Amino acid sequence: MHKVTKIGVLTSGGDSPGMNAAVRAVVRTGIYHGIDVYGINRGYSGMVENDIVKMESRSVANIIQRGGTILKTSRSKEFMTPEGRQKAYNNLKALGIDGLVVIGGDGSFNGAQVFSNEFDIPCIGIPGTIDKDIAGTDFTIGFDTAVNTAVEAIDKIRDTMDAHDRLFVVEVMGRDAGYIALHSGIATGAENIIVPEAKTDIEEIIKSLTEKEKRKKLVNLIVVAEGGEFGGADEVGKLIKSRIPTADVRVCILGHIQRGGSPTCFDRLIASRMGFHAVECLMLGKNNVMVGVVNNRMHYTPLNAAVKAKEKFNKDWLKIVKILAS
Amino acid sequence: MHKVTKIGVLTSGGDSPGMNAAVRAVVRTGIYHGIDVYGINRGYSGMVENDIVKMESRSVANIIQRGGTILKTSRSKEFMTPEGRQKAYNNLKALGIDGLVVIGGDGSFNGAQVFSNEFDIPCIGIPGTIDKDIAGTDFTIGFDTAVNTAVEAIDKIRDTMDAHDRLFVVEVMGRDAGYIALHSGIATGAENIIVPEAKTDIEEIIKSLTEKEKRKKLVNLIVVAEGGEFGGADEVGKLIKSRIPTADVRVCILGHIQRGGSPTCFDRLIASRMGFHAVECLMLGKNNVMVGVVNNRMHYTPLNAAVKAKEKFNKDWLKIVKILAS
Amino acid sequence: MHKVTKIGVLTSGGDSPGMNAAVRAVVRTGIYHGIDVYGINRGYSGMVENDIVKMESRSVANIIQRGGTILKTSRSKEFMTPEGRQKAYNNLKALGIDGLVVIGGDGSFNGAQVFSNEFDIPCIGIPGTIDKDIAGTDFTIGFDTAVNTAVEAIDKIRDTMDAHDRLFVVEVMGRDAGYIALHSGIATGAENIIVPEAKTDIEEIIKSLTEKEKRKKLVNLIVVAEGGEFGGADEVGKLIKSRIPTADVRVCILGHIQRGGSPTCFDRLIASRMGFHAVECLMLGKNNVMVGVVNNRMHYTPLNAAVKAKEKFNKDWLKIVKILAS
Amino acid sequence: MHKVTKIGVLTSGGDSPGMNAAVRAVVRTGIYHGIDVYGINRGYSGMVENDIVKMESRSVANIIQRGGTILKTSRSKEFMTPEGRQKAYNNLKALGIDGLVVIGGDGSFNGAQVFSNEFDIPCIGIPGTIDKDIAGTDFTIGFDTAVNTAVEAIDKIRDTMDAHDRLFVVEVMGRDAGYIALHSGIATGAENIIVPEAKTDIEEIIKSLTEKEKRKKLVNLIVVAEGGEFGGADEVGKLIKSRIPTADVRVCILGHIQRGGSPTCFDRLIASRMGFHAVECLMLGKNNVMVGVVNNRMHYTPLNAAVKAKEKFNKDWLKIVKILAS
Repeated sequence: MHKVTKIGVLTSGGDSPGMNAAVRAVVRTGIYHGIDVYGINRGYSGMVENDIVKMESRSVANIIQRGGTILKTSRSKEFMTPEGRQKAYNNLKALGIDGLVVIGGDGSFNGAQVFSNEFDIPCIGIPGTIDKDIAGTDFTIGFDTAVNTAVEAIDKIRDTMDAHDRLFVVEVMGRDAGYIALHSGIATGAENIIVPEAKTDIEEIIKSLTEKEKRKKLVNLIVVAEGGEFGGADEVGKLIKSRIPTADVRVCILGHIQRGGSPTCFDRLIASRMGFHAVECLMLGKNNVMVGVVNNRMHYTPLNAAVKAKEKFNKDWLKIVKILAS
Repeated sequence: MHKVTKIGVLTSGGDSPGMNAAVRAVVRTGIYHGIDVYGINRGYSGMVENDIVKMESRSVANIIQRGGTILKTSRSKEFMTPEGRQKAYNNLKALGIDGLVVIGGDGSFNGAQVFSNEFDIPCIGIPGTIDKDIAGTDFTIGFDTAVNTAVEAIDKIRDTMDAHDRLFVVEVMGRDAGYIALHSGIATGAENIIVPEAKTDIEEIIKSLTEKEKRKKLVNLIVVAEGGEFGGADEVGKLIKSRIPTADVRVCILGHIQRGGSPTCFDRLIASRMGFHAVECLMLGKNNVMVGVVNNRMHYTPLNAAVKAKEKFNKDWLKIVKILAS
Repeated sequence: MHKVTKIGVLTSGGDSPGMNAAVRAVVRTGIYHGIDVYGINRGYSGMVENDIVKMESRSVANIIQRGGTILKTSRSKEFMTPEGRQKAYNNLKALGIDGLVVIGGDGSFNGAQVFSNEFDIPCIGIPGTIDKDIAGTDFTIGFDTAVNTAVEAIDKIRDTMDAHDRLFVVEVMGRDAGYIALHSGIATGAENIIVPEAKTDIEEIIKSLTEKEKRKKLVNLIVVAEGGEFGGADEVGKLIKSRIPTADVRVCILGHIQRGGSPTCFDRLIASRMGFHAVECLMLGKNNVMVGVVNNRMHYTPLNAAVKAKEKFNKDWLKIVKILAS
Repeated sequence: MHKVTKIGVLTSGGDSPGMNAAVRAVVRTGIYHGIDVYGINRGYSGMVENDIVKMESRSVANIIQRGGTILKTSRSKEFMTPEGRQKAYNNLKALGIDGLVVIGGDGSFNGAQVFSNEFDIPCIGIPGTIDKDIAGTDFTIGFDTAVNTAVEAIDKIRDTMDAHDRLFVVEVMGRDAGYIALHSGIATGAENIIVPEAKTDIEEIIKSLTEKEKRKKLVNLIVVAEGGEFGGADEVGKLIKSRIPTADVRVCILGHIQRGGSPTCFDRLIASRMGFHAVECLMLGKNNVMVGVVNNRMHYTPLNAAVKAKEKFNKDWLKIVKILAS
């Protein structure tokens, strides 16, 4: 076993539900192994500005069910400079910290990698993002919660959509990843899903909507990923309106509700497991790896490979959208 | 007792959660009293187009917990014409319908009033709108659900707001009424609430935000009614941004999620009670009245008085916003 | 205005969702008026044992949406003795506390009354109990949340009940009050409701169940208040089983889930308003009164009248149960 | 491609949330491929009693989000006899049904296997049970929803547990499988989990509870699987009470709420995918296999191997319970 005595933990980038469960797991696993654990506030900013506090077991009591992150998060410009990272290193060194757990997305991992290459503090990454677009893991902390929040919201929209026989274009988050759109779209029986990962035949959509409009039955749900090929829901709504001027098109952008809320069981579980294993990784002398879940088992990926995943979607899934909504 | 043998029931205007509970109550109370009940689809449109079906007790089984309206709803242009209303009357008359229950807002009541003045079919109104802006009742069906949906959504937004120390401007529904904003704003601890019913000192808000921004602590929640004095959340967000260019302002428009979802206990209860009493009203020979709840008791208001309520807000409530968010 | 400089606030008896919102309102309203506010932990126990902490505005940040009570609660035996109360008084006096806000039910109010009669510290009560059985107020903090929790749970039970065509007996809380049973029963379309406030014709229930069983359609929901005339759900279930041995009877006791969870908008609002007005009461020199809500307005009741309400239920409501479930 | 022209679909055994999504997928995939689909009501009972209806695409509209099963379910004694199965076969044959999809648990699969061995109608199984104890699939339809329902309920219980510093013993479902207990226990930060799959050191639990009781800090959450080694929560509660007579022990049995409710995104997705692939299996000429999900991919298991899974739990998971709750 590698000798680790003091570790820091931080959350960085966009927050996601379940980050608190991961922080709790890192803190308590560390303490269990006799390691001092320090919470670094506001991501790399707190590292640079020495906003760091010692965590006790009770510091993380009653947070497993809370959205957001008690350590707060931010994007730090200063950490992107060599001077900023030097300051951050000095702060950690002054406290005797000899290991770091970074909970965040690919941008945060990039920072961790640069830092651990420059200095003698090993870094372990935990994938925390609602976008689920990190290579080396089947799931990221927060995705399951975000997608369930989207589904519950769209279920509500469907109530009013059905009451009025209307066309709704609903935008979900995910930046340039379409996972939230794909999963929530299938789960809510969306007629169409527009995602960055697949080519959308917009003419086919317009054609089917036009036919419905002719039959005075333009009740239709389109779920759009924010980074879709035609832009977000506003753009898609305008595009449809320009082609079918009589259509009664409603646009909903679900927005930041998808980032908050009490995490699902699944997110709490993977966060707990990842936090637990991140500490074990440091104790095993690992560095520059991300702890992920692949095929329901823990999986380790070099941070430089834990980049944005650029996958094509499984064809079966897109076929399912088409056939089941019919 | 007035002899009523066949009644029609319809939902009209914007849908609201709990309308199904009201329909169920009308149908089952009618059947209990030996009255045939007909469901008129898509509001007045179905009346004009003769889209009317006989309802049985089981037609309304298992709907008390559903959002939307099984009778669907719409706004009918044809019903606004004398010809349209004549067609509607002929359709009802052909079926022998001698009483009508209209579930909707002030626009729908207006239609009911014109209709019952022109023809010999008495009309009873039930206030169904999420906006809670009808005179003659303390509550309207759907308001409690909508405001809880808004609260749950804003709770989630607060998670991410706190994680990032950000300024959020959240827009809730209510058209030109600020009840949803007032209630959800207090319930979520909003720092500021902008509603049509009260004058907003925008300079004071800008000043306090500017001070927070100087202290690098611009975490603040502003809840805006869609019909607020400065426009919706987009406009308020731009206004703040123009005055505090460094501010990181996020805008969320909660939108149509507030119209759907399973109704709360409260909405199911008032809907059940109102539906029950609407049928009794017809049996008592009443006409042109709305069934409301005032001081927890049933209350009857002439339809021509059941218009948009234009109340000033209780000063205590606005004081509470200010003091409690501090 | 009466001069008040330091007040204490405590939660006592069974906890209820929304107590935190009331604590927050007391703390922030006090601070706004220049009053020091002390949080007394674990109800009267903390008063006796001097477990008292000064509260700041931020002590109550981010709690309006939390169930439970951050001040914790308990039932104190020592406070029931003159010696215990003397100790409690000495502790308050040592801190200079000259006003007390007690959030709880009738038992807690009784303690407050005895205390304020013995000593020169005025007490204001805020009704916090899920049971809604306090005279002098239309609503108590926590009732709306508890009843919505019960409704959501029973909705889920109905899913499986309908899938199997089964008879379910569901017990809800409320001790010797039937409000939760009455409200949740109507809202979930229960066929029968058994509450302490009304005589139940059990033979009629058995008869209707027997007929359903004969038709092999024994799908039926009975909601029972825990203090019902035949006991709780277990007893009612056994009674039915003894009379209809072939019946497939399932019993669910919803239990403590009804005490927790994020409070509804309504509970947060009345809690905020009551907390705000409780402090104003102390400033106005009032003593020994409970702050309640009657007909949507604040209402003050002497603590000795704020006892268990023993009302007969409105006959219309019981008629509604019968007619609508048919 | 095998020629399939008419298929039947049924739900059998205990219901689970997501069954409707599977039914919808079977119906719409069948129709898409030009196959007639028949819904068989009440499981094998409807097959024996010829309670079978033709399904259209719209028969399954708006059900993906509903708990329970629109086809209803039951356990049929008659189908266990050769005569019953012969009747069932005759009914299917009369309709020309040449393929069957059975959604249920291992008992239901057993019936399907016997039936398809006796007669020339191929059967495909889809694992629908909240217990997640079927070999050949990582997940069963309903487990994710049930475990999230349990987590939400226990979160509420924790609110009141923390307010009172109490000991709660909470029983979750799962029959002789402990997955719901294990997952919900970790996700709610339970101090102890008692499951059939692992030996529980009850003396160690009693010892730690006794110490807490001595320090007057007996706040502790124990999650018990209904089929645990010491019985359910009632038995565990009594056992603790007998050993620590002063302890204030509360027991909650979550019960049937875990079977109902709107399915999670995950359950809707796997149900949709399994339903889609079950029809494809019949078209490929497969028989007597269960469609499962292993490592996020579709996986086919002979029905006679799709029995109750008897796995030991991963040691890491049990270690996580211990370390993280500390």
